[in-house]
Amino acid sequence: MALHRFIPARYHTTIGSHRPALHVAPGDTVETTLVDSAGHDASGRQVTPGGNPQTGPFHVAGAEPGDTLVVRLERVVPDRDGGYSASVTAPNVVDPEYAAAMPERRRSEWVVDRAAGTATLAAPTTALGQLTLPLAPMVGCFGVAPEGGQAISTATSGPHGGNMDYRGFGTGVTAYFPVFAPGALFHIGDGHALQGDGEIAGTGIEISMEVRFTLDLIKGKRIRWPRGENADHLFTVGNARPLDQAVQHATTEMLRLLQEDHGLDGHAAHILLGQCVEYDLGNVFDPAYTMVCKIAKRTLARVRRGG
Amino acid sequence: MALHRFIPARYHTTIGSHRPALHVAPGDTVETTLVDSAGHDASGRQVTPGGNPQTGPFHVAGAEPGDTLVVRLERVVPDRDGGYSASVTAPNVVDPEYAAAMPERRRSEWVVDRAAGTATLAAPTTALGQLTLPLAPMVGCFGVAPEGGQAISTATSGPHGGNMDYRGFGTGVTAYFPVFAPGALFHIGDGHALQGDGEIAGTGIEISMEVRFTLDLIKGKRIRWPRGENADHLFTVGNARPLDQAVQHATTEMLRLLQEDHGLDGHAAHILLGQCVEYDLGNVFDPAYTMVCKIAKRTLARVRRGG
Amino acid sequence: MALHRFIPARYHTTIGSHRPALHVAPGDTVETTLVDSAGHDASGRQVTPGGNPQTGPFHVAGAEPGDTLVVRLERVVPDRDGGYSASVTAPNVVDPEYAAAMPERRRSEWVVDRAAGTATLAAPTTALGQLTLPLAPMVGCFGVAPEGGQAISTATSGPHGGNMDYRGFGTGVTAYFPVFAPGALFHIGDGHALQGDGEIAGTGIEISMEVRFTLDLIKGKRIRWPRGENADHLFTVGNARPLDQAVQHATTEMLRLLQEDHGLDGHAAHILLGQCVEYDLGNVFDPAYTMVCKIAKRTLARVRRGG
Amino acid sequence: MALHRFIPARYHTTIGSHRPALHVAPGDTVETTLVDSAGHDASGRQVTPGGNPQTGPFHVAGAEPGDTLVVRLERVVPDRDGGYSASVTAPNVVDPEYAAAMPERRRSEWVVDRAAGTATLAAPTTALGQLTLPLAPMVGCFGVAPEGGQAISTATSGPHGGNMDYRGFGTGVTAYFPVFAPGALFHIGDGHALQGDGEIAGTGIEISMEVRFTLDLIKGKRIRWPRGENADHLFTVGNARPLDQAVQHATTEMLRLLQEDHGLDGHAAHILLGQCVEYDLGNVFDPAYTMVCKIAKRTLARVRRGG
Repeated sequence: MALHRFIPARYHTTIGSHRPALHVAPGDTVETTLVDSAGHDASGRQVTPGGNPQTGPFHVAGAEPGDTLVVRLERVVPDRDGGYSASVTAPNVVDPEYAAAMPERRRSEWVVDRAAGTATLAAPTTALGQLTLPLAPMVGCFGVAPEGGQAISTATSGPHGGNMDYRGFGTGVTAYFPVFAPGALFHIGDGHALQGDGEIAGTGIEISMEVRFTLDLIKGKRIRWPRGENADHLFTVGNARPLDQAVQHATTEMLRLLQEDHGLDGHAAHILLGQCVEYDLGNVFDPAYTMVCKIAKRTLARVRRGG
Repeated sequence: MALHRFIPARYHTTIGSHRPALHVAPGDTVETTLVDSAGHDASGRQVTPGGNPQTGPFHVAGAEPGDTLVVRLERVVPDRDGGYSASVTAPNVVDPEYAAAMPERRRSEWVVDRAAGTATLAAPTTALGQLTLPLAPMVGCFGVAPEGGQAISTATSGPHGGNMDYRGFGTGVTAYFPVFAPGALFHIGDGHALQGDGEIAGTGIEISMEVRFTLDLIKGKRIRWPRGENADHLFTVGNARPLDQAVQHATTEMLRLLQEDHGLDGHAAHILLGQCVEYDLGNVFDPAYTMVCKIAKRTLARVRRGG
Repeated sequence: MALHRFIPARYHTTIGSHRPALHVAPGDTVETTLVDSAGHDASGRQVTPGGNPQTGPFHVAGAEPGDTLVVRLERVVPDRDGGYSASVTAPNVVDPEYAAAMPERRRSEWVVDRAAGTATLAAPTTALGQLTLPLAPMVGCFGVAPEGGQAISTATSGPHGGNMDYRGFGTGVTAYFPVFAPGALFHIGDGHALQGDGEIAGTGIEISMEVRFTLDLIKGKRIRWPRGENADHLFTVGNARPLDQAVQHATTEMLRLLQEDHGLDGHAAHILLGQCVEYDLGNVFDPAYTMVCKIAKRTLARVRRGG
Repeated sequence: MALHRFIPARYHTTIGSHRPALHVAPGDTVETTLVDSAGHDASGRQVTPGGNPQTGPFHVAGAEPGDTLVVRLERVVPDRDGGYSASVTAPNVVDPEYAAAMPERRRSEWVVDRAAGTATLAAPTTALGQLTLPLAPMVGCFGVAPEGGQAISTATSGPHGGNMDYRGFGTGVTAYFPVFAPGALFHIGDGHALQGDGEIAGTGIEISMEVRFTLDLIKGKRIRWPRGENADHLFTVGNARPLDQAVQHATTEMLRLLQEDHGLDGHAAHILLGQCVEYDLGNVFDPAYTMVCKIAKRTLARVRRGG
């Protein structure tokens, strides 16, 4: 149960079977930092090329294919006072015939007040003036070395996680990833001070971060897609395009979760999901889109109480 | 501002330019009933063939193509004590290779306690036992006569509305539809005592209903897709397949809404959506899927306050 | 086996259960004309509003839901000397970020030389000069009244046929449609002097036409999607979006065709398709896209010969 | 212009920046062998794990990102007398509700007669008997090291090529790939004795192969997607899901090809494609699907002749 204070020396823009940056044991906690998506650190200095550079990978002793990696996100907070975002939504999230009518692509700067917990548009050049929004920090891109020795760009996502840009991945959430490579090789990066659903502009408010997380293992537990848990919900994550397929992956994984982990028979799992499922939208900007399938813990508690 | 108590004599399983069942004036309120999706009324008697039979159409005096129909849903409540649902999710929402492993399709019966506000599984044949869930009544299918004299099945949806199966369409919500035909010709049906996101089993808890709604017009206001408003959010609705295209329709309509109705310039609308948009999933069972794009009223209030 | 020379008096821009324009018996032949997609006739005069106006519907005596309508296209030829096309591909067939770089949308005029069998660009304003292409006349939009009393826009397609824009629907081809309404109610329109796959500009070379076709019935033969046959191939047509779903519909229908009509067991049908199937692309411009699944007659002949 | 006879010692199931197996110069020719998709060589012995193992990579001296790799496929022929295929189409190419009705998945064995140029079903257990089909040998999976240091599974495809399963990649075809890594790092594998469009069973007739190809470079020529050329056509390849997006990639690349390589202005390119484009279907089994966009050389010749 060691605590590792890790200072990254290099970063990766693929998630793959790279040489471990740090070896940890199951149950260990890591405190480290993430550069922003363009490779800038807490001081605003560019320390690595852009493209969602990842801190890590972290090698978890004893992790083997067929296990599940547990990642408890204990602290996900910006570590500087400014972020940036794109000013135009991506052409793939608007009607094709509307894409030609989009305003010119620029960069918006935001002042982040960590004490107040807010982000404020720096230059009042639009009707938004100096719009101030509450922070909701999260990590956009994290995951484990993918199956079969692949190294997959941090611009996309898959069964291994990756650039899911789901607003639910902030402080207090536990994420689960299928282990495909020895040591799991956990990567993490792409902090957002806040973000709309879908990351439809192709960015949140991009910012460097301090993070603390605990890595653990469930030995012999095989999952197919990332999963997660917060105070209120269990969830599963599907990453694919079109969104229809992301829905299929996430829903199928949730049906497995209910049957394998909660002892429901097939009809019970299907009836429960049919009337109680919730979905959240992750990234719709990447090559692969993300859909999250959720079930409320209070609903599962009702099931356990016998209705 | 008349109040019409309307007793339906016939029902439609297409939404189209059918002979009006009732003529009303803008501002009038209608109290009426909806049979369930299988055509059964409050007494449980089948009074019309199944397939989301619609009450109506209601002809609104003065409505013309290019106007917007306003539908304030003032009361959407079950009017009997039992509903039914499918017991298996649709094969199109699970992985294709998982579809062969689905349990056998059955019908689940639910006891609805309107006083307590609950639905309870009638036959404890699964691990769910007599699961009890809180009611969240809504209408699955409603809308106006489509463009160009079309008559479109109540099994699907489009710019005219239709079978959107969005959980947000319950008591207290205002819906907006583009008017395509003289009189707008509003149809409504397919009540659900409650439903999961996506209507992934192909049903909610299907039930007959009492509804009260007020119909109004915004003359000369042209919208392209259904819109809505509740206490917390403004929203737009895209209906298409794949979901990616439903996202495009809903997002484009929201960009128009922000610019046309709220005076935002292009960059303001795009930046705001980029960091503040939310999406909800409607139907993913029909030929056309539904995605809802939302912006919080408190966020718009921040914009109006000047940031 | 009558021959009807039919002069259309009105046209429809939905395919639906409209009042029959002509009653025919199974086996009868019809000679008639089609206006172009903008409603212009052989003399170039606009006689009806645009939007793929349909000649018909033709009521076939004895046709009932559950039968198959047979349409032998015996003559599909332009009846005037000029056509037009769009000059820019649709934004939905290019990358979203490329859509903003498209040239301005114009109309191209083509001189059609029916004796020579060619179409020539009228105004040499581009690098194409007076490009001359061989004619390959076809009908873009035809089909039968859809299921359940629907009336569906001629801008799209479905199980009933509609705007499929498949280059294979020219002289000598036999098309099959599922009958959904009494009399089948056959509609036909949208002639193209020639067209690229996909109708990616949203038009072929649009032109009015003379057509001759024979309508027949296969009583009690239920098909789910349009089918066709030419000298070399049998084919099935799926209409949906995304194309993936059109592939699913067409492939499933072909699996049924091989098993029901050609006596193949399941493994035989699957193995044969796996190694011998061909696909053609129909419309990728409409709300619904079209994919055609084909099997060569010479391959089926090999099967019948016992390998 | 050396000729290299290369005997592979190891294989890769990702396409990535692996250590070169052989260094060649632009213009050099390579003769080598491909194991089948399950890792079996000409003698039928399994020499490497399955999953479309690739021979290579071949490092081309002087190739740099921004260049184009030219691959002339001079000989693509089976080198043994037996192949295998799956006996059931993939569940993702049939309607979801049909997927449950599929026959049991088996393996079919085929006897390949290289002299006669035929493949014959070995075990006459279905209505196909000993069906004999003409050979049409091709490579299913080939390409270059992807962008950004990625290593991508040979089960899928992308801008770098990969598992495209396009029937057009046989003897006599020239393929072009964008170079993303120094030396290009060309991989090749997954021979099919023949295959239906789409590889809808997930296999062609899988077989080991002898291949001869010449590798060349077009320095400073940047393409975005694989391209190709045969006696009759130029073509571009899009790899993505859904197919709609593969259509977009391939069509956009063809618009670039016509404008950059053939001197057409924008309107010329769009008009030409609109009326003359053809599409072929590649793989619809993988995570990424493949669509091929073609233009006939005789059409381009017409354009050059001035119409």
